[in-house]
Amino acid sequence: MILIDGKKVSSDIKSELKEEISALYNKTGKSPGLVVIIVGNNPASEVYVRNKHKACGEVGINSTVLNLPEETTQGELLQKISEFNADPNIHGILVQLPLPKQIEESAVIRAIDPGKDVDGFHPYTVGELVIGDPKFQPCTPAGIVELLKRYDIDPSGRHVVIVGRSNIVGKPAALLLMQKKKFANAIVTVCHSAAKDISVFTKQADILIAAMGVPKFIKKEMVKPGVVVIDVGTNRIEDATTKSGYRLVGDVDFEEVSTVASYITPVPGGVGPMTIAMLLKNTVKSFKETIRND
Amino acid sequence: MILIDGKKVSSDIKSELKEEISALYNKTGKSPGLVVIIVGNNPASEVYVRNKHKACGEVGINSTVLNLPEETTQGELLQKISEFNADPNIHGILVQLPLPKQIEESAVIRAIDPGKDVDGFHPYTVGELVIGDPKFQPCTPAGIVELLKRYDIDPSGRHVVIVGRSNIVGKPAALLLMQKKKFANAIVTVCHSAAKDISVFTKQADILIAAMGVPKFIKKEMVKPGVVVIDVGTNRIEDATTKSGYRLVGDVDFEEVSTVASYITPVPGGVGPMTIAMLLKNTVKSFKETIRND
Repeated sequence: MILIDGKKVSSDIKSELKEEISALYNKTGKSPGLVVIIVGNNPASEVYVRNKHKACGEVGINSTVLNLPEETTQGELLQKISEFNADPNIHGILVQLPLPKQIEESAVIRAIDPGKDVDGFHPYTVGELVIGDPKFQPCTPAGIVELLKRYDIDPSGRHVVIVGRSNIVGKPAALLLMQKKKFANAIVTVCHSAAKDISVFTKQADILIAAMGVPKFIKKEMVKPGVVVIDVGTNRIEDATTKSGYRLVGDVDFEEVSTVASYITPVPGGVGPMTIAMLLKNTVKSFKETIRND
Repeated sequence: MILIDGKKVSSDIKSELKEEISALYNKTGKSPGLVVIIVGNNPASEVYVRNKHKACGEVGINSTVLNLPEETTQGELLQKISEFNADPNIHGILVQLPLPKQIEESAVIRAIDPGKDVDGFHPYTVGELVIGDPKFQPCTPAGIVELLKRYDIDPSGRHVVIVGRSNIVGKPAALLLMQKKKFANAIVTVCHSAAKDISVFTKQADILIAAMGVPKFIKKEMVKPGVVVIDVGTNRIEDATTKSGYRLVGDVDFEEVSTVASYITPVPGGVGPMTIAMLLKNTVKSFKETIRND
């Protein structure tokens, strides 16, 4: 069994980006800029935003964190987005979800210029993903494909089974992996809670992507020996032995399944770090296109 | 075995739309308007456009067919689209594909106002389809779901296997059918030419959608008894006994597979007539929204 080390891959990507950004700076005197907007004081969101900010600093992306108060109106937020849409020094705009109740998420996502949609959630970006050539790939699914690439696991012609159909992971991962392209071209099944017996599907997987948000749901008897397991789950479960009183586990029962899998991602340290790496990559991509168009 | 009669269902839908359009006219004095643009003289396209125009006339949609010469430039076509985008009497714009070589299809599709994108091919519309609530569903996949509805075949919890991953049928049909919604909520597999043995997947189908464009590809031994078969293929094969010298066949070997299927669509007369019916439905939907916003 080979452990897919997302932390290592993410760190490699960051080194590559750092070099690229530095070379571009030497040539143009410019750096990529990302703004992350957070509304209110959700503690989990604050951790995510801090991690993104820190990662930007590591690679040389100018990152601005805009903290707006909990009571911000939708109109105020849209106004800010419109200012960032117009700002030539900002190449990526990310609004940290969830948002307070008075703000409609879908309206906010649609307000971001698709040319700066580094999260890949705008319907226009998602549509381009279906058609096959998006400017920005959604970060988590792109991170999964990148892990497969770096471990030379080619999904072409293989059966990828995805458990979960979220807009953030399940559906876009399916779309990425079924395209007639390199490191894609897979037969893809999307299964979910409506299945009478989900193990009928998971047992067929050459590559299993678990993304339904149920702690340790995938057990050994639900997979076939030699399966490649990508665990997108990050569930907090109580654990009195830790300082925080909880620990993170995936949607896969790692202890059991790792005994039969050929490759498996741990939680934490698997897909998680890749999401930020791909966000940085998207921001640099956006930056490079503005340079090219200058 | 029950034959799914797309011609009958399409005709029912047209009668319903005719009544609805007439009632709306009596209330508002207005009728829906569709423009169909055709560039050049592709004989197959001319037949399609004529059929659409005729169907519009049957239900009371004002339909304009704009025939542009083969040598039309992309700029000229985009100019026309921009005029129709601005025209309040036009509720749907359809550009018949394929287009001559000098015109880039993707640029043309993107130029159509997503609010008038009754074909459902604009990336914004496609993205909304992924997320789950598109203004316009792409016509052929929507026609498939409508056939299932009218024959009371609920895909919820069942395994839908789609052969083919085109942007027009395979991918959007998968997206429609996997949503957590009524007459959807299926476990969906998209398979295609990269599969070593495609029958491994087709044999599992509770509902099989054949949309790869290979005449009579699906044979009896590739399906399980009782399968529901939706055949999207329309392939011309030579037939000296017909006046035209050819006849239409589907991607399914109808003679063989109809002996084991529980439901099956014929070709012609199955999915084909539904595509136009859904185009009319989308046009009426667009019209109704403009009335509501008046």
